[in-house]
Amino acid sequence: MPKRVDHEERRRLIAGAVRRIAAERGLEAVSLGEVAAEAGISKGLVQHYFPSRDAMLRYAARLLRQQVEDRVPAEPPSGPAGLRAVLVAVLPLDEESRTEALVANAFLVRALKDREIADRFRDGHAQLRDAVAALVTAAQDAGDLRADLDPVREADLLLAVVAGLGDQVLLGHRTPAEVVALLDHQLARLTSAGA
Amino acid sequence: MPKRVDHEERRRLIAGAVRRIAAERGLEAVSLGEVAAEAGISKGLVQHYFPSRDAMLRYAARLLRQQVEDRVPAEPPSGPAGLRAVLVAVLPLDEESRTEALVANAFLVRALKDREIADRFRDGHAQLRDAVAALVTAAQDAGDLRADLDPVREADLLLAVVAGLGDQVLLGHRTPAEVVALLDHQLARLTSAGA
Repeated sequence: MPKRVDHEERRRLIAGAVRRIAAERGLEAVSLGEVAAEAGISKGLVQHYFPSRDAMLRYAARLLRQQVEDRVPAEPPSGPAGLRAVLVAVLPLDEESRTEALVANAFLVRALKDREIADRFRDGHAQLRDAVAALVTAAQDAGDLRADLDPVREADLLLAVVAGLGDQVLLGHRTPAEVVALLDHQLARLTSAGA
Repeated sequence: MPKRVDHEERRRLIAGAVRRIAAERGLEAVSLGEVAAEAGISKGLVQHYFPSRDAMLRYAARLLRQQVEDRVPAEPPSGPAGLRAVLVAVLPLDEESRTEALVANAFLVRALKDREIADRFRDGHAQLRDAVAALVTAAQDAGDLRADLDPVREADLLLAVVAGLGDQVLLGHRTPAEVVALLDHQLARLTSAGA
């Protein structure tokens, strides 16, 4: 009996190759031949799953979105610790999140031209902001964060801080420990005790 | 008498073409042929000025750094207004700064592998951080910002905020007015009057 092929698994294998190449050398290095070689399969098989390079990139962008979401704890501990855990999870502090940040970066220019990829970015960002704003609200209700804060505004600022600090870690301008300390400084401003 | 050729001007013409292509379509679209067509000159002439694609990209990164610096006011008004002016100048709010932000983004993955481009990024960032930290210190001395702030730490956070907010403007997640309001909220935290 012929072995059943898991098509979704094959697509993921190909998207994984796209991802590694994009993180290493940018989207400019993502070609059919390079992807096939990196995935260890034939060019024909890549083409069987993806009719075009654009289709392949869109699928990779979809998976990227999924992976960033998956890394954010589904049920973070409530209070400031939960908020901090979600924000630290967004920083590129290990190999996995570093690759994700590089791939997201590589896709940015493309997201400006490709509606589908732009939508993925937009949805992902909105989802993350809503999650962070909800954590701010919960911490306010528990009396851990100042009651006068606007949760959406603070969520926007906190996500801007982690995005900006993330680039600094990627480029080696700051160490992981330094950016976590900077994030903690920003978070301390929001606590009831802080000024 | 043959016309004198301004070689530096020719190099700038070519770098301008690299820049427009990178901002529009990413580094992946930057080829000798595309650059020659965009600059309106022959491939041979591009090759005369740049022996390789890498050399062309390095020169473009150098100019990018220069242009970002040039846009930061050399002698900003002192006090919180000067600090704000420098930070707003870093945000991609007009066509020019938007192109610069996109090109900087396109170069990020390359900066991780190319020592010379990495050095440009590092020097530029350090220079900007020093300028912002000096403005924070001056505003503290004038009594406009809280005396208990660490200027370098606040400079790092403010630059992270504008970098993160910049991506949100580029992607259309937030409007220019919204990100400036968010920056102002962060700056208000640092004033003597703010909490």
